[in-house]
Amino acid sequence: MAVTETSVTGGAREAMRRLRAASATTRNQALLGIAEAIRERAAEIEAANGRDLADARGAGTSDALLDRLTLDAGRIEALAAAAEAVAALPDPVGALIGGRRLPNGLELTKVRVPLGRILVVYESRPNVTVDVACLCLKSGNVALLRGASSSRRTDAVLVAALREGIAAAGLPEDAVVQLALSREELAAFVGDAGNAEVVVPRGGEQLKHFLLEHSRIPVLVAAGGVCHLYLDASAEPEMAEAILLNAKVQRPGVCNAVETLLVHADQIDRLPRYLAALAAAGVRLHGDDRALDVAPEGVGMEPATEDDWAREYLDLELAVRVVDSVDEAIEHIERYSTGHSEAIVTRDLESADRFVAGVDSACVYVNASTRFTDGGEFGFGAEIGNSTSRLHARGPLGLEELTTFKWIGRGSGQVRG
Amino acid sequence: MAVTETSVTGGAREAMRRLRAASATTRNQALLGIAEAIRERAAEIEAANGRDLADARGAGTSDALLDRLTLDAGRIEALAAAAEAVAALPDPVGALIGGRRLPNGLELTKVRVPLGRILVVYESRPNVTVDVACLCLKSGNVALLRGASSSRRTDAVLVAALREGIAAAGLPEDAVVQLALSREELAAFVGDAGNAEVVVPRGGEQLKHFLLEHSRIPVLVAAGGVCHLYLDASAEPEMAEAILLNAKVQRPGVCNAVETLLVHADQIDRLPRYLAALAAAGVRLHGDDRALDVAPEGVGMEPATEDDWAREYLDLELAVRVVDSVDEAIEHIERYSTGHSEAIVTRDLESADRFVAGVDSACVYVNASTRFTDGGEFGFGAEIGNSTSRLHARGPLGLEELTTFKWIGRGSGQVRG
Repeated sequence: MAVTETSVTGGAREAMRRLRAASATTRNQALLGIAEAIRERAAEIEAANGRDLADARGAGTSDALLDRLTLDAGRIEALAAAAEAVAALPDPVGALIGGRRLPNGLELTKVRVPLGRILVVYESRPNVTVDVACLCLKSGNVALLRGASSSRRTDAVLVAALREGIAAAGLPEDAVVQLALSREELAAFVGDAGNAEVVVPRGGEQLKHFLLEHSRIPVLVAAGGVCHLYLDASAEPEMAEAILLNAKVQRPGVCNAVETLLVHADQIDRLPRYLAALAAAGVRLHGDDRALDVAPEGVGMEPATEDDWAREYLDLELAVRVVDSVDEAIEHIERYSTGHSEAIVTRDLESADRFVAGVDSACVYVNASTRFTDGGEFGFGAEIGNSTSRLHARGPLGLEELTTFKWIGRGSGQVRG
Repeated sequence: MAVTETSVTGGAREAMRRLRAASATTRNQALLGIAEAIRERAAEIEAANGRDLADARGAGTSDALLDRLTLDAGRIEALAAAAEAVAALPDPVGALIGGRRLPNGLELTKVRVPLGRILVVYESRPNVTVDVACLCLKSGNVALLRGASSSRRTDAVLVAALREGIAAAGLPEDAVVQLALSREELAAFVGDAGNAEVVVPRGGEQLKHFLLEHSRIPVLVAAGGVCHLYLDASAEPEMAEAILLNAKVQRPGVCNAVETLLVHADQIDRLPRYLAALAAAGVRLHGDDRALDVAPEGVGMEPATEDDWAREYLDLELAVRVVDSVDEAIEHIERYSTGHSEAIVTRDLESADRFVAGVDSACVYVNASTRFTDGGEFGFGAEIGNSTSRLHARGPLGLEELTTFKWIGRGSGQVRG
């Protein structure tokens, strides 16, 4: 599909106009229609997915990636159920988020409206196709989907189901558009600020850098998560160990997992126990001199290099540093953090307040795991991604973050003096 | 000043960290200190301004620009008073703007924090130097000021006064930095996303395009204002005429002035009266065929070209088109508007609702002048600019728009299951 053709960009533009005017009832009907269409096309989806999988196997794709690509009957039903779940969420459009009556009687209100067209660039996970399209539709936005070529046939059937459900509710099919673009075509597409209102990358660092480099459309991006856990002098040891293990071990491959442990020197006696617990959970350790000094035999701690402090391991691996104060911890975080999520474990109110005020990341936790940074955990019902950008939205991107606002002034003939 | 030197960028970064931790009391003390320093240096400011003015006169600068550049005793006192007025505004930092208690007891709060470093690029208006610096300081942000070379000596003394007031309150002088950058140096500076968190251009279209082209720092920009006034079939004629004259004539050189008048065909009998009133106020008129047909002798209306519909005249000049419905008006606006401000005059509730829902500009008015799009009029107390961007903020940019937020999670040992 040559997406730079006027027909496609024009279709998305017209769909944006019509979605903006669509009621919540109509948008929810479309979501229920999508669930129905996915169920009806289950066999077709599985067949297309089988062809994508066969090609991927032939290309020597890893088992982990094959698993991400696979849609079986259970996963297809989960997609339909997800569309229904999004329909049941509160409507983010039209909410009144501010306003005042001016002295001259003009009534100003600040009201949420859709952003417009949201381009999502993602890797070979066909569930993202449905999730993202449903969240965009719910929030009155056009979804421009650029998935991976390895799932193109699966995505094509999913998009057909999406468009069928949308059309059944009387909304324009171009509310969801699949963009089969090469990297070069993608660069050209995002190089034109008129093609979408925002780009959300869901993928690795390379993809993010590619978009930040080429896009004239604003990019809502999550830098990788070099997340920190600081154990304060007064940290309760059992809580410290439980949060540490949860934040590092429960799911090490995700962006809200901890990559660096900072330990107050007053906790040095307890550090061997923490290190042993980590090692027992299979965590490779890199430590500074003071951590190395107390590391028990058998944990196999290596000296941390400057590189380690900035590494997002995304694996069972952790850098450990001993600090002499909460301020030193804050300084370390200021220097190495990507601004995603950080946590302190402490019993001291002043340390907690200092940490919360001094650490300028999107999410800052006191006595809780960094793993909570997630739209589902935050109660958003769903998330389209995460942001470490400072403008517009920080942290999990839910439905509200897919809206902007406009000001409405209702008067009775007011003119400016 | 070689701003790309580590000393300067490092100074701003350290100032950002310290401002973030400063209390509202301290920030307000700095603002009062600034007012004092400006008054103490009034003679010095006037002398520097005199040298800038002499050079500008020598370079054949127009009277209008010379006036904008001039600071006399009264204007200098107004600058000091402006700093005091900003100190008296409510504190935008630390406001709780959302939150919830999760089922596991984790308390999430969403709290306003400063954006960081705000680069403002502006033209030769020394009052902007003080206004912008004060708004940034109030909102806990570092101000990076790149003014015009023609006011460089005036700005240098103003910045010295700003830094003096800031230092007197115990805050770092680098909370305000004057950047004497050439266009090429500016391009290099904004090409590094690490140098500031946001850029706000205050100047002509050329400056905006320059920044949009070269900046890797997000740009909060106001497209020019091709603003529309639509007189609906049911518009009350006296109100229509009053709003039309206010929106076009009161101050034609500003971005919230109306550039195109759309008139419902049912109002065609009244159009000659509106056109005569505009012509009497000195407005040059460009009309479509139907408008030309009814234009009274002597108003000198010319045929409107395609160009006229997209023109931001910024002058006593107006394009006029007759439409057959509110939908046709909305379509015209959709096609030609820059998304700044539009207004409808109507007595019909359905027309009003249709217009408000269908027009997707930053500010949409019913029975009021577009001229109200202004931070002062909106009750923000001050504004740093205006935005037609869709992300982060739309419309007037006040103190709240100079903040972002962070999520704080306070727990008692919660881990993710």
